[in-house]
Amino acid sequence: MNLEGLRVMGIDPGLTRCGLSVVQAGRGRAVIPVAVGVVRTPSDAELGNRLTRISDAVEEWLDDYRPDVVAIERLFERGNVSTVMYTAHAVGVLILAAARRDIPVHHYTPSEVKKAISGNGRADKQQMTTMITRILGLSEAPKPADAADALALAVCHCWRAPALAREKQVAARTREFKRRLEQRSKQ
Amino acid sequence: MNLEGLRVMGIDPGLTRCGLSVVQAGRGRAVIPVAVGVVRTPSDAELGNRLTRISDAVEEWLDDYRPDVVAIERLFERGNVSTVMYTAHAVGVLILAAARRDIPVHHYTPSEVKKAISGNGRADKQQMTTMITRILGLSEAPKPADAADALALAVCHCWRAPALAREKQVAARTREFKRRLEQRSKQ
Repeated sequence: MNLEGLRVMGIDPGLTRCGLSVVQAGRGRAVIPVAVGVVRTPSDAELGNRLTRISDAVEEWLDDYRPDVVAIERLFERGNVSTVMYTAHAVGVLILAAARRDIPVHHYTPSEVKKAISGNGRADKQQMTTMITRILGLSEAPKPADAADALALAVCHCWRAPALAREKQVAARTREFKRRLEQRSKQ
Repeated sequence: MNLEGLRVMGIDPGLTRCGLSVVQAGRGRAVIPVAVGVVRTPSDAELGNRLTRISDAVEEWLDDYRPDVVAIERLFERGNVSTVMYTAHAVGVLILAAARRDIPVHHYTPSEVKKAISGNGRADKQQMTTMITRILGLSEAPKPADAADALALAVCHCWRAPALAREKQVAARTREFKRRLEQRSKQ
């Protein structure tokens, strides 16, 4: 399945720092970097104000770069519960922005991303940054970590997309096959 | 402090069922019911679609009823983590809708609401529904539970609002007093 040209936006969600990236699938496993950045919101601002800033930023990115799909980190259900809660609020706002533009959203756990990029589900930040820099042919490592993570998510989806598309095709064919079988048994 | 006429929207957040209510503060502790309802989203729909439906509904309510303030339940950080996560996504979308209209949002824990309405932080659903029906002078008990909870949140804020306004006034006066003291010591 050829997905050359597929534009993927990667999001490493967070309320204080939210990593955003856009990449484009090239030939084979090649991935071309398009944009990378981090949205920051001041921790002393009101929650509504912070969510508005994140929403505005992601809407601007979606409208400027027009990705075909968004890949976002699936939230850890462990760790500091209060931080996770705030990140979950941000994720709601981010998914809403994509849904309002009919852009599908895929979720990947950190270990799925690590495995896809480095072959090791437990790769550390340094290994991940090195791999992402190499894969995208960047002249220097993307900074901060949230930016590198957003790129890793986008690349992960580029590489998973052909398999996902095949699965979808197989599921559609299976449904069609079943439908015909049922029709034949009725005749 | 007289807050007669204050319009409060109460929200009992949820992805499957989200309770919405609007009440208006009357004289003294009187509260007048304005509207109550529940937004439902199908559990088999995509997350982005569900968040869009919730966002659309709350935006319509905010534009129709023009509340001065929103009171929303502070999320329990316990219980079924996955459900809490989905509710947190919905809360993000709800707060964003209010923030985009410059409407302040106040958070109350379930026990704060129970205490304010029934005098008992551990009141059960039946006691709460009975109290809310009586306070608002309704001819029958609001249904489902999410609708009653949304009304309870709004009434809770109506009753807390005068104290909150006084606290704000005291804080502003204290700041002003300190500023003058500092000015005088500089002279």
